[in-house]
This record gives sequence, C-alpha cells and structure tokens, in this order.
Amino acid sequence: MNQVINLKHKASLFTDHWSPKVIAELNDYQFKLAKLKGEFDWHKHDDTDEAFLIQSGELIIELPDNESVHLAEGEMFVVPKGLMHKPVAKEECTALIIEPKGVINTGEKNERTAENDVWI
Amino acid sequence: MNQVINLKHKASLFTDHWSPKVIAELNDYQFKLAKLKGEFDWHKHDDTDEAFLIQSGELIIELPDNESVHLAEGEMFVVPKGLMHKPVAKEECTALIIEPKGVINTGEKNERTAENDVWI
Repeated sequence: MNQVINLKHKASLFTDHWSPKVIAELNDYQFKLAKLKGEFDWHKHDDTDEAFLIQSGELIIELPDNESVHLAEGEMFVVPKGLMHKPVAKEECTALIIEPKGVINTGEKNERTAENDVWI
Repeated sequence: MNQVINLKHKASLFTDHWSPKVIAELNDYQFKLAKLKGEFDWHKHDDTDEAFLIQSGELIIELPDNESVHLAEGEMFVVPKGLMHKPVAKEECTALIIEPKGVINTGEKNERTAENDVWI
C-alpha cells in the first residue's frame, strides 16, 4: 500500500477525453486525472467545490457573465460550489481534479456523464 | 475571486522550511505549499489522511518497519490516517500538501508546530 503515484505515468495509461480516472483517495476525496479536449457542457456542482490542477496543456474554464479563467501547466483553480462553469480545451489538456467521491462530472446526469470510480 | 493560482509563483514568495502556506481551499480542505529541507519529526495524524504532491526536488517519507517512499517531482503519496511518518529532504524540496483545515503539522503540538492558515 506504500504506493508512489507518478502522474505522468498514470496519464500515459489512457487516451479518452472527459473521462476522469481515479489515481488516489484522501479520506472521502479523490484525485482524478482527466484528459480534456474540445468543449464540455455548462454545468455546476451544488454540493462541492472542484479543484483543477493542470498537468499539461491549457484549459479555459468559462464562467457566468462572460468571465473565464485561463490555466496553463502548473496552475490551479477552484470552481466554487454552485457556480456554473464550462471547461474548454483547444488542444488536449491533462488536468488533476480533486473533489469528493461520487461527484457527477456533468452536474446533472446526461449522455456525457462519465462512470465514477474508474481507477488507473 | 476568479483567481488562477500559479504554483511556481506561489513557491517563490517564501523561503522558510517546514512552514506550510495555504494557497487554496476546497470545501473544508486546504492546498498548502511547503518547502522541506532536512529531517522532520516522526508524527501521525489520527483523524485524516495527508497527500503530498512533489513540485520540485525529492522527498523521502520514512514509515514504520524501516519502510519508506521516495518521491520525485510529479509524484504523489497519501499517508494513511494514523500512520507514523517522518519526512526527510536531503536537498530542498517543494511539496503541495492537501489535507483538511486545522491539521497540526507535527501531529501533537511541539516546538516545530507551524502556525495554521498562513496564506500566500
């Protein structure tokens, strides 16, 4: 169980987009790697904040009122609970997402809802 | 409040060792940057796991029974709740620590206990 987790190695183990993979748990929270490319759906998480820490590439997170944040490698942003947001990656981006277990990636379930608790 | 957090920039803002600085909050959890050099004390956290994500340098976390984990940049490890551990950095290491607010860095309070909730 004394497991060192190498983020680049974990990121090399999958190729699909918008499908977060669990790499570690911390109490009832999970660390998930996700590859993002293109535009995701507008959504929100009513019960939790959501942290994005960029591992490679760039991510734009569109926010209400035409605001947005632009994240490069080594940068992070915490989307506050309840705030509508839309992740957009012009080129492929790898993000480490930290949030409680069981969060639905699309906010409400839809055809882009990813399966939870998929470990790599 | 739409604040992008650049980890390298934040790390450039302080020089003291074993004194974690809060850079972000996620619900009742905190992201803290810490510069580590030398040997810390053996300690444990009875109420929580603790995640280390190495930003620069290398960190050894000594564990019971002469076990240890060796972490390089881009690697992470979660110290399980209640497990005795001793961080050791031969050269300066910068680590991102993720854990609930209010955790005492030394487990029990002693002369190396750092002040909590110091933001940079």
